[in-house]
Order: sequence, then structure tokens, then C-alpha cells
Amino acid sequence: MNIAPRAVYIATAQVRDDEMADRVAKHQARRGAEWTNVAEPIDLIGALKRTDGQGPRLVDCLTLWLTNLMLGDHDWRGLGRELVAGLAGQSDPVVFVTNEVGGGIVPENALARAFRDAAGELNQWVAAEADEVYLAVAGLPLKVKPND
Amino acid sequence: MNIAPRAVYIATAQVRDDEMADRVAKHQARRGAEWTNVAEPIDLIGALKRTDGQGPRLVDCLTLWLTNLMLGDHDWRGLGRELVAGLAGQSDPVVFVTNEVGGGIVPENALARAFRDAAGELNQWVAAEADEVYLAVAGLPLKVKPND
Amino acid sequence: MNIAPRAVYIATAQVRDDEMADRVAKHQARRGAEWTNVAEPIDLIGALKRTDGQGPRLVDCLTLWLTNLMLGDHDWRGLGRELVAGLAGQSDPVVFVTNEVGGGIVPENALARAFRDAAGELNQWVAAEADEVYLAVAGLPLKVKPND
Repeated sequence: MNIAPRAVYIATAQVRDDEMADRVAKHQARRGAEWTNVAEPIDLIGALKRTDGQGPRLVDCLTLWLTNLMLGDHDWRGLGRELVAGLAGQSDPVVFVTNEVGGGIVPENALARAFRDAAGELNQWVAAEADEVYLAVAGLPLKVKPND
Repeated sequence: MNIAPRAVYIATAQVRDDEMADRVAKHQARRGAEWTNVAEPIDLIGALKRTDGQGPRLVDCLTLWLTNLMLGDHDWRGLGRELVAGLAGQSDPVVFVTNEVGGGIVPENALARAFRDAAGELNQWVAAEADEVYLAVAGLPLKVKPND
Repeated sequence: MNIAPRAVYIATAQVRDDEMADRVAKHQARRGAEWTNVAEPIDLIGALKRTDGQGPRLVDCLTLWLTNLMLGDHDWRGLGRELVAGLAGQSDPVVFVTNEVGGGIVPENALARAFRDAAGELNQWVAAEADEVYLAVAGLPLKVKPND
């Protein structure tokens, strides 16, 4: 039996070392033939435009996209705002995976502190626009929005 | 049109470097003329007494207050207990901002470990006394207390 | 009046230094005579079998158990799966304390990164099998499962 792809996995990871290659391989091994795989570390906005109409998209993840933007000296604020502004024009659903990274002690590394702040802002912009938001706790979804 | 202040912002940050100065400036720029600004890094208990009757108070934040107490060798336990014991006597509402700082790996720095423990205790004391507690997730409030 | 023990506290901590000794002493001082204390850093599965029938068990905590397994080069995956598979056969309740350790910046230390991943997996296995899951926020329980 052939399984036709009916959902799109947009991976934002950039493989810079063996550890990340291993992590990516594990993630890929979990996905079945129902997924179309798209690797897009920078132009996430374009990837969403190009894949609209191919089914729901899972973006894994916003924090790696932000990492790539910051390390590459891209305008993460401008691109983040553009990403969020474009969501209303998407026909197929978009699901973003992201991370809360501010739950530890303030790090001694200045780039880490800047990243924490940036991730917090980007998460807020996307969450404000999203129809539903869930916090993953031990792999279980805890509904944050809408609250009823 | 004049906007009369009708709420009080109690900032506990101590500006020790340019990064903190920049952060404080950004926070101040977000606040309109409806706020009276009070800077009080140590005597938070006194600041709450002095501002009671001027409208709701927003304390930003408990973890910076705790940082100042610990770095200044003040009795954070005694002052924390006194803060919480005094809340019932306040006429105007008090809203505390705080941080959960124990969500990462146990840090190698001993002071950071002591701070994690202290923040956890202080948060528990205040949360036990509070009428309402919310967890902020991507900028959205998740109600923790009362749970119904 | 004698208080008969009616619950079992299974402590997984290994005391390796004064700081941990101090922490363990504080935890012990909080517990009254209603507790039977069992110290079991490695063979948690055996401890649960041996104590079934003595009342509810509180395991404090899964992340320290995992730490001991990883530092001792035990097969944490195999033992973790075995732990979870054995829960259905327990007659008395089992309550696990654990920690979400992935809420901070990705650490520079490779062992810390491996531990984050492992703790996330173990937490997911246990949470999937548990009847109830709570997230502790400032000492208050936030119900994650069942969600109704």
C-alpha cells in the first residue's frame, strides 16, 4: 500500500555537528510516509507560502529558526513580525513547536541572555495570533488558549 | 488632556550595568502616564505601606528584590515572611511579578543554586497568600489559583 | 501517642557532598512519624515491589534516580521502561516527584544536554502511564491530566 503524503514537516534545524545530525536522524526516523519533509533554516516565511495547499504544516521549531536568524545576523524582529502577519493569509493549518527558554537562572553568557529575550518576544507574537496554544508538560498538552 | 496616575509601578531592579539600564529604559518606555513610578530595590515592605491608597500596585519583580536582598546580605527569609504577613493589611490590590527559575539544569554555580532554592520558597509563600496566581506562557496567562 | 507509619517515602538521593547532606537533612526534618523512610538510589523497581502493601509510596525523585543511573552507567532506558511496565501491578498508590529540566537555555555541558533529553523521555513514559499528572507552580498544583 502506498501512503500519500498529507502533511508537511518544516524542519528549521541547521546541522552544525554530529550531535545535531544524530538528533535530526532520530526525529526523521519517527516520521512515516504521510509526511513531506522540508528543510528550511532561514526562509520559513517562503516555505509556508510554498507549502500552503499541501496540507497542515508542522514547523519544528521556532527557537531553532530564531537561532539561525540571530547567528546569521538577519533581522529577526522584522522577519518575526512578517511571519506572524502572514499567518492569517494561510489556507492550511500551521502548527509551531517552540520552547520556553526563560525558566532557568539568568545565564552568564550575553548571547544566551539576548536569545532568551528574543525567544520570549517571538513566542508572544505568535501566541497572540494563534487560535490555540498548549504548554507541553512531560509530553502532555496543557491548554493555555483559548481558556474557557 | 491630562492623565492622572491611577496605578503604582514598584520597580525593584538595581541598575548595575548598561544591560540593566537598557532593560529598565525599555520597561519604562512601555508605561503610560497612568503610572506612578517608584524605584525600591530593598525596602519593598515600606514601599507597599507608603503607596497604599494610591491605587493598585504592580511589583516588578520579586526575584530581583530577592537578588538584592541576597547580594546585600539582608535577611531574605525574615523580610519575605514580613512581606507576606503584611499583605492582608493592604487596602489597594498588589500584583507581584516573579519568575520560576528552577526549570533548567541544576547550575554549577553555588550562589545560583542557593538563589533557585530561595526563589522557590519565596514564590511559595506569596502564592499561598495570594487570591489569584497565574503562570505566564508565551505571554498568555494560565490560571493556577483558584482552580475551579 | 504513637503514630504508626502509614506511608512510605522512597528517597533516591545519593549524598555525595555536604550540600546534598544538608538538603536531605532538611527534607527529613519535614517528615513526621507517619512516614517509613526508604533510601534507594538505584533499585527503585525493587523498592516499589518490597514496599507494596505498606501504604502509598512517594518517590522523591525520578530525576535523581536518573542521575544515579546515568552516572553509574546503568541502562536507564531499560530500567525506565521496566519501572513503567511494573506500575500496573502495584496495589498501593505510587506518587512520583520529578523535574522538568528543559526550560532553560540549552547548556554548554554535553552531559547536561544528554540528561535533559533523558529526563524528558523518562517523564513522558511515566506521565503517559499515570492516572494523574500535576505541574507544580510556586508550590501550587496545576492539573495536567486528566484534562476535563
